[in-house]
Amino acid sequence: MKQLSPSQIREMIRVNEWTKPTAGLANGYIQTNLAVLPKDLAFEFLLFCQRNPKPCPIIDVVEAGEISARFAAPDANLKTDIPKYRIYRNGEMTEECENVSDIWDENMVGFLIGCSFTFEEALLQNGIPIRHHEEQCNVPMYKTNIACTKAGRFQGPMVVSMRPMSEQEAIRAVQVTSRFPSVHGAPVHIGNPEKIGIQDIHQPNFGDAVTIKEGEVPVFWACGVTPQAIAMHVKPELMITHSPGHMFITDLKNEEFSVL
Amino acid sequence: MKQLSPSQIREMIRVNEWTKPTAGLANGYIQTNLAVLPKDLAFEFLLFCQRNPKPCPIIDVVEAGEISARFAAPDANLKTDIPKYRIYRNGEMTEECENVSDIWDENMVGFLIGCSFTFEEALLQNGIPIRHHEEQCNVPMYKTNIACTKAGRFQGPMVVSMRPMSEQEAIRAVQVTSRFPSVHGAPVHIGNPEKIGIQDIHQPNFGDAVTIKEGEVPVFWACGVTPQAIAMHVKPELMITHSPGHMFITDLKNEEFSVL
Repeated sequence: MKQLSPSQIREMIRVNEWTKPTAGLANGYIQTNLAVLPKDLAFEFLLFCQRNPKPCPIIDVVEAGEISARFAAPDANLKTDIPKYRIYRNGEMTEECENVSDIWDENMVGFLIGCSFTFEEALLQNGIPIRHHEEQCNVPMYKTNIACTKAGRFQGPMVVSMRPMSEQEAIRAVQVTSRFPSVHGAPVHIGNPEKIGIQDIHQPNFGDAVTIKEGEVPVFWACGVTPQAIAMHVKPELMITHSPGHMFITDLKNEEFSVL
Repeated sequence: MKQLSPSQIREMIRVNEWTKPTAGLANGYIQTNLAVLPKDLAFEFLLFCQRNPKPCPIIDVVEAGEISARFAAPDANLKTDIPKYRIYRNGEMTEECENVSDIWDENMVGFLIGCSFTFEEALLQNGIPIRHHEEQCNVPMYKTNIACTKAGRFQGPMVVSMRPMSEQEAIRAVQVTSRFPSVHGAPVHIGNPEKIGIQDIHQPNFGDAVTIKEGEVPVFWACGVTPQAIAMHVKPELMITHSPGHMFITDLKNEEFSVL
């Protein structure tokens, strides 16, 4: 699997030859979250993402009536090329499935939103350890008191992910992740969780708690869960997302999205 | 004038105490182009800009029914705070005016698009001369053979601006402007104009020709004229823009938009 191109992996996913999470596949290529919303919410949602690029980095959009992402993966079929989807009706999850061709109709627009895989790869390449990898669990995520900028019906707080590290590593992590402004970019906070409204660092709102060792500081990044959580508040009649960890693999290389 | 804040300058513009170009005002603050389009084109236009961030860097959007830019200038009135506007009907310019309150109705959406003032300030601070400033004319602009990525009804070629400089300065210019990916960013081409479809460097499609001295190379940046030119192709029933040089002054500092 590790040798396959994004296009080859998508073909396998399309015919259900791969139905598992996508971490570790197509190294060096951007993977994304998916949020599919009714067309009448599309402008407001795109604007919300535009105004809040740190938590909501849009990589591309599947236009109404189309199946591919013109910029990110022109030969893909977004209705089949994700290993597992989730369907939400009026804000409630009703099912998980491996193909949404029958559900995603021409009145819906798909948003591909950057995920942390890109900058985690860069952190690892710089020798910065990632605790939730070491402890083989999900990254801890927290609701904060940082308000996103409103757009139309979409508003709410930013969700952040946390990675503990030494102060020296935190400085390097700022430099490394600043190179990727289109995929969450630099941290939004380093240090005191209470400053951003997190009461108990050991009780994340999503994902799993990880060990914070003596001498380590928590480093917080804006998290791609934010746009999905905020879209959910609006309780759209129908909304489709990827299932956690089962991302969309694009043709775009991480390094194409770096600055300097 | 040079001492006034963006908000104070906007107030003067609002009551027609300032009706001239805005270059040199509110140094250090982001100035933007304006394109106002009917609501039914808004999603496709925002997506076009999202897919083509180098020529079309969206700074903020004035939502239908609103008058301010929630992120870029919350206390502004976009219908009065630009010194001079242009009105286009079915793709033809019909008038210039200093106030569009009666024309810009609640079915229109305004797009604030980054302009070159930001990176030119950075070039000057790095000792890189800007020829069209020296020769007191407009920057030369050219249609290229570089296709923008299509979105909905919007498609067409990229327009670029050109600044001649030494090879050494060109290297520094890449570094300096790469820090500002949200306002055109790094050059799109250095050197041979024919490679990007420019037949005669001395005959720009827009703006004025400038002197290219012995030993200088032309350096090309994606230009904010691109989205207006492309919107015009669609010949919207009504479209409002700023008048060239008469920009909107935001509350956002250039440096807030830099990376690293």
